[in-house]
Amino acid sequence: MKTILISNVLLYKERKDVLIEGNKIKAVERAGTFPVEKYDKVIDGSRKAIIPGFVNAHAHSAMTLFRGVGEDVPLDQWLRERIWPYEAKLDEEMVYWGAKLACIEMIRTGTTTFNDMYWHLNGCKRAAEEMGMRSVQSFTWLDHFDDATIEENKKQLKIAHKESANWSSLTTFAVSPHAIYTVAEKSFRYINSYAKDNDLLVHTHLAETRAEMDQAEMEYGMSPTEYMNKLGLMNPNLMAAHSLWLSSDDIKILGDNGVHTVHNPNSNLKLASGYKFKYNELRDAGANVCLGTDGCASSNNLDMIDSMKAAALLQKVWRNDPGAIPLKELMDVASLNGAKALRLKAGKIEPGYLADVALVDMAKPAFVPNHYFLANLVYAANGDCIDTVICDGKIIMEDQHIPGQEKIFRKVQEVADKVVDYKKRKKK
Amino acid sequence: MKTILISNVLLYKERKDVLIEGNKIKAVERAGTFPVEKYDKVIDGSRKAIIPGFVNAHAHSAMTLFRGVGEDVPLDQWLRERIWPYEAKLDEEMVYWGAKLACIEMIRTGTTTFNDMYWHLNGCKRAAEEMGMRSVQSFTWLDHFDDATIEENKKQLKIAHKESANWSSLTTFAVSPHAIYTVAEKSFRYINSYAKDNDLLVHTHLAETRAEMDQAEMEYGMSPTEYMNKLGLMNPNLMAAHSLWLSSDDIKILGDNGVHTVHNPNSNLKLASGYKFKYNELRDAGANVCLGTDGCASSNNLDMIDSMKAAALLQKVWRNDPGAIPLKELMDVASLNGAKALRLKAGKIEPGYLADVALVDMAKPAFVPNHYFLANLVYAANGDCIDTVICDGKIIMEDQHIPGQEKIFRKVQEVADKVVDYKKRKKK
Repeated sequence: MKTILISNVLLYKERKDVLIEGNKIKAVERAGTFPVEKYDKVIDGSRKAIIPGFVNAHAHSAMTLFRGVGEDVPLDQWLRERIWPYEAKLDEEMVYWGAKLACIEMIRTGTTTFNDMYWHLNGCKRAAEEMGMRSVQSFTWLDHFDDATIEENKKQLKIAHKESANWSSLTTFAVSPHAIYTVAEKSFRYINSYAKDNDLLVHTHLAETRAEMDQAEMEYGMSPTEYMNKLGLMNPNLMAAHSLWLSSDDIKILGDNGVHTVHNPNSNLKLASGYKFKYNELRDAGANVCLGTDGCASSNNLDMIDSMKAAALLQKVWRNDPGAIPLKELMDVASLNGAKALRLKAGKIEPGYLADVALVDMAKPAFVPNHYFLANLVYAANGDCIDTVICDGKIIMEDQHIPGQEKIFRKVQEVADKVVDYKKRKKK
Repeated sequence: MKTILISNVLLYKERKDVLIEGNKIKAVERAGTFPVEKYDKVIDGSRKAIIPGFVNAHAHSAMTLFRGVGEDVPLDQWLRERIWPYEAKLDEEMVYWGAKLACIEMIRTGTTTFNDMYWHLNGCKRAAEEMGMRSVQSFTWLDHFDDATIEENKKQLKIAHKESANWSSLTTFAVSPHAIYTVAEKSFRYINSYAKDNDLLVHTHLAETRAEMDQAEMEYGMSPTEYMNKLGLMNPNLMAAHSLWLSSDDIKILGDNGVHTVHNPNSNLKLASGYKFKYNELRDAGANVCLGTDGCASSNNLDMIDSMKAAALLQKVWRNDPGAIPLKELMDVASLNGAKALRLKAGKIEPGYLADVALVDMAKPAFVPNHYFLANLVYAANGDCIDTVICDGKIIMEDQHIPGQEKIFRKVQEVADKVVDYKKRKKK
């Protein structure tokens, strides 16, 4: 098995040697323990820090194609007038290019794993594997309450699921019913039972906006969370993105059933969906809180450090508590918790964990002086501080260099121009 | 006079040639207008965009020394237990090194001018001029209502003011009464009259926290803004940092008197001071709204793009209006408005304006695809996208390189360790 030694690297407060063997962390010892000549690859960590690779627990990767097209409009209008018409034009090749750009961006900012929900999942899967990233790719289900669509979706879900048997160990298959306002009750029941039978994760949007909450109250006489609970979806297979508009009863449901919730602070701000994410309450109730960026059409980038900062600052201010979300806990939310949700032993720099790690370039102003590494990382730096990324024991970025990046940028611009047809849109 | 041609550079949506002569922008014409062989220096702008240099309208630069020491505590405790004891140890040399780091950070993130409030102003002034930055350096006045201190401050203010006659044209002298809870009423009156007589800017903290508001109500029976108005400070000389806790009467006072307010969103979030900055109301009332980072001990970095993003996202979400702060307006808040406040003809890429500009590296994922440059700049990118900075017609950073940066980092770490005495603090 191939070995990588990262020598004399900062791990929070101490200098360590981190030894990787195959796709796992083999040892973490005090700096100077391992002789550099013994390993296949040695990275000098003396000006770097090591952190677990981030787990972006809610993304729509290929939406990089729409970065900047839906500025300054609310969610509903954004979906109906901009995103859905553009998405209708997409094919697998376009999704592939959008996802390639997303992978570059995620790798450059220290993410090693992402949980995706999008059309043409094979396009995104191909991009992620080529770029060396770990991901969960899901069959995305919208039916707009139409029976013919529901039947077609059932068929396509099975086909996609069957194809996934050939996927590499980097990629996992899941199923994504979009949201309660786009997916029929019977579809949710079907998906839930299919996921249980096949031990699949179910990835959905839950309680994202006040409008969604109001509509559920009106139509079902209960909250979105209560409604999904009634349909049987509240269980540890569920990844509930946003989970923003929650009553204390809702929080109890999510906690008691060990649901994974994904906070997407920048998207919630940008679409003015809300900002009072109930972090403490969800954690204390027993829900697993993860962090995500959402897609680039709403939050504009895929930088998990940017998301961590937004998450922490919002908790502080809406709770009127400058001590809200301790930094160590925040790091777990952005890595370990996401890994748990996706059933990966990752998110810690400890022997036996997957070798999914990022190295931070400490020769940046944000890390000077180095009084408190995590504070510098989250509050002063941004994703551009990431220097080198290792996923599944393989170096996928070294010294900020990803091979072929320029070509991908050019190709993405071409594809994006075709989909959005910006010139036509401007004339309107 | 020296000339710089920036050829074929993106200015919002169009490719332009920007010609600089001496310290001013001489011409902005369609790309290809000027023959490259005619100028002292030519910068190929074909993969870059040009923006006005940012004006950081409220900073305490040398507080870079304290980056990460006062995490997760409220303003009052932060000042009394951490910052003030450390500051008591500072001398001019230490401030100089802290400010050198701050300048590196500001230049790297596209800021060309900053409005500083700190002790040992000559240290910061020397650092800024060496680094080629434009700044306002102010005599900082705290007296804690002590008569002897007040008399000493009067003497020192005059000395500092007199010395400033020898400063270069890059630096302007001002006076900074810290805040109503640290400065006596008679001091405010004295400072105000001194500033009027000498045509100086007055830079203060105003209405930053709810505690400050409550205290003013209790002690003076009026808001902080009404109190300062009573003392005669509400006039176009005043730069009122924070201006966060405002009644509609307060907003009218600030607007009617053409006061310059400085929003510091990241600091307000981090210290849990508040988030409902009344942007629309202040603008509509006639106040000049500027943007700042505050010091690195509270907001942790000096990145104006990070601050623009926070400002815009917060407006959207607290107003429940995804359209809040249009991007063009936001760019003015971060550049033109600050320049106006500081009495500079800067903040626009137009002939006759000061040659204070930044070039953006478009070969970053955040700028792909390029549907909408300003949205990419503010919402997807961060300060690390800045490639080249020109201030007063001189190149102060080219291709992300600032000479001598490494040495400054090392020296700052030494100084910071001396001031904070981190090992001692940890043991407590």
